[in-house]
Amino acid sequence: MPLPPIEQADATPEVRAVYDDIKAARNVPDVNNFWKAVAHHPPTLARTWESLKEVMAPGALDPLVKEMIFVAVSVTNNCQYCIRSHEAAARRLGMTDAQFGELIAVVGMANETNRLAVGYQVELDERLK
Amino acid sequence: MPLPPIEQADATPEVRAVYDDIKAARNVPDVNNFWKAVAHHPPTLARTWESLKEVMAPGALDPLVKEMIFVAVSVTNNCQYCIRSHEAAARRLGMTDAQFGELIAVVGMANETNRLAVGYQVELDERLK
Amino acid sequence: MPLPPIEQADATPEVRAVYDDIKAARNVPDVNNFWKAVAHHPPTLARTWESLKEVMAPGALDPLVKEMIFVAVSVTNNCQYCIRSHEAAARRLGMTDAQFGELIAVVGMANETNRLAVGYQVELDERLK
Amino acid sequence: MPLPPIEQADATPEVRAVYDDIKAARNVPDVNNFWKAVAHHPPTLARTWESLKEVMAPGALDPLVKEMIFVAVSVTNNCQYCIRSHEAAARRLGMTDAQFGELIAVVGMANETNRLAVGYQVELDERLK
Amino acid sequence: MPLPPIEQADATPEVRAVYDDIKAARNVPDVNNFWKAVAHHPPTLARTWESLKEVMAPGALDPLVKEMIFVAVSVTNNCQYCIRSHEAAARRLGMTDAQFGELIAVVGMANETNRLAVGYQVELDERLK
Amino acid sequence: MPLPPIEQADATPEVRAVYDDIKAARNVPDVNNFWKAVAHHPPTLARTWESLKEVMAPGALDPLVKEMIFVAVSVTNNCQYCIRSHEAAARRLGMTDAQFGELIAVVGMANETNRLAVGYQVELDERLK
Repeated sequence: MPLPPIEQADATPEVRAVYDDIKAARNVPDVNNFWKAVAHHPPTLARTWESLKEVMAPGALDPLVKEMIFVAVSVTNNCQYCIRSHEAAARRLGMTDAQFGELIAVVGMANETNRLAVGYQVELDERLK
Repeated sequence: MPLPPIEQADATPEVRAVYDDIKAARNVPDVNNFWKAVAHHPPTLARTWESLKEVMAPGALDPLVKEMIFVAVSVTNNCQYCIRSHEAAARRLGMTDAQFGELIAVVGMANETNRLAVGYQVELDERLK
Repeated sequence: MPLPPIEQADATPEVRAVYDDIKAARNVPDVNNFWKAVAHHPPTLARTWESLKEVMAPGALDPLVKEMIFVAVSVTNNCQYCIRSHEAAARRLGMTDAQFGELIAVVGMANETNRLAVGYQVELDERLK
Repeated sequence: MPLPPIEQADATPEVRAVYDDIKAARNVPDVNNFWKAVAHHPPTLARTWESLKEVMAPGALDPLVKEMIFVAVSVTNNCQYCIRSHEAAARRLGMTDAQFGELIAVVGMANETNRLAVGYQVELDERLK
Repeated sequence: MPLPPIEQADATPEVRAVYDDIKAARNVPDVNNFWKAVAHHPPTLARTWESLKEVMAPGALDPLVKEMIFVAVSVTNNCQYCIRSHEAAARRLGMTDAQFGELIAVVGMANETNRLAVGYQVELDERLK
Repeated sequence: MPLPPIEQADATPEVRAVYDDIKAARNVPDVNNFWKAVAHHPPTLARTWESLKEVMAPGALDPLVKEMIFVAVSVTNNCQYCIRSHEAAARRLGMTDAQFGELIAVVGMANETNRLAVGYQVELDERLK
């Protein structure tokens, strides 16, 4: 029942222009299923691509760190598609097995200590207020 | 009604030993409220501190990246105490305002695109299987 | 290992009575798997059906709006079964592709700005207190 | 801006009847703020109280175990009001400090290993399918 | 320790231009704290405002329905600031107490049945695949 | 694309020692896929096993109650692997169908009332502060 992916050949000119920009920016022969799904709502396709391009660009944080943060959020939200696509992106940017192992270890510990802090209803220290 | 923090002076020797190790490792005069709360269950105090020390140590990822991942998870889980204490830790390690701004922007976008992927029930691309 | 669905033929009279009420209310030949699973605990089956019937009935909000709210929560919780069954219900009530597209766009933006508000630890405005 | 609690004196007869039932069932002089808030929508007040009474009654699980499960969910969802009220209920039913400590420790570990399982995208073992 | 809100008088021209656009679009004398916080990262301020303006505009769904969906997500994510600001926006658009009561009731039921579907690991019905 | 499970025959001595300890402690012929995945980061394997062994051991709470709490968290987080493996563990410890039914019912109600408390922004009662 999920909406079928919209392939380039079936896309409106508006959608095709976004696909072309994604393919050029990422140097890939085809956009992935995420974009082909979101294309069912062209304004969301265009807006999301523009936003993602801006947010994930090199800046004060390097792109690999950004992809690892993306994985951390996606694991916490349990989004399979997002984990796999952003883990793949991080690996293309050079993430090693050791870095991935540490990333997941930090995500695990953060989720544990988040619950300890909440479970004990810890009050903010003066210096954190 | 939350359990009162256990101060060093009132701690058992077992708890005090952990407090001393935290203070030495972090070079701080007192442990923060998180540890004084968890100290109500001494095995959790000892285990959590040992784990955190291991996980957050410099390794394949540098400590600042680890603290930023910790913030990303804590924001996604909406844990106020955790956000503030790990943002403070990241700033002590040199996180700039620009880096914090980009960190939160990535966390925001990841939470948005996670929901788009789930909302459209996007199928895994062949190359991601 | 999940418990097998309880089919009408194998159901106790208590469970069958609930199935019959669901089929009559929805004008369908068979109840769906959700009910056949929850039927393993008959009090939960009866209570959940009574509650859902009451909550989703036309009232101050129309049923389509209620189904769209159900989808919004299910996407945020990442419950595949719930997304698909309530998206189907919304479409039966007339939800168009354009409405679905806007629904998912709002869900995405809300999840993003929720994290921005939490990440920046925004204080309540006076007028919101 | 939150709606003010509806006190017994200002309640409609319909709401008052629910309050009276809660006070009798729990042997308390007044209902707590949760009920006084939900009372703004009387059908939700009545339905929620009936459901909670049924679900939390002694059965195959004893009431203390049920309250601890309630705390576990509330900590994972980060609902302050829910944590405090159900921790209080668990303590009235005899939960000791040691039991509370172990409860929170399990909640923490479960949240950690949940993320490890998701982060590594662990495949179901044959025996779990 | 949260970053202080950036007031109009202290804002850069870039930030001020966004503030002016928000004030004009909403016909309010001042922007609220959300924008004054996000303004610490001007690209996020500009992008978020442009996105929100586009997503929340009247379209296939009316603005009140969109605000109620926003509240539903914010309640599920437990974001206090977001709940209060979007509940206020929904009330300005005409949401009645009865509508708010039904909205919260649906959000509650959806969160309950989401967990029942997941807890019983309900298989997708053929017609939902 | 998920990392392949590391089988005993291919494991380093360090990893094999953990596998041997798990098999002995649980009296099983092979460890399950969770451990074979986490083994890609040996320090996380060793630490997680030591922690889990400590946390889940009989103590102030009996092991069945601990496994049910684990299931409650896993359902709330929507972690399929975790639900199935800990439901299986609970059943090995004697959980009956009736107990499972009540467990899921409590998890469902807790998720519902958590959202009611948050949706109405219920203030803490004096006695809960």
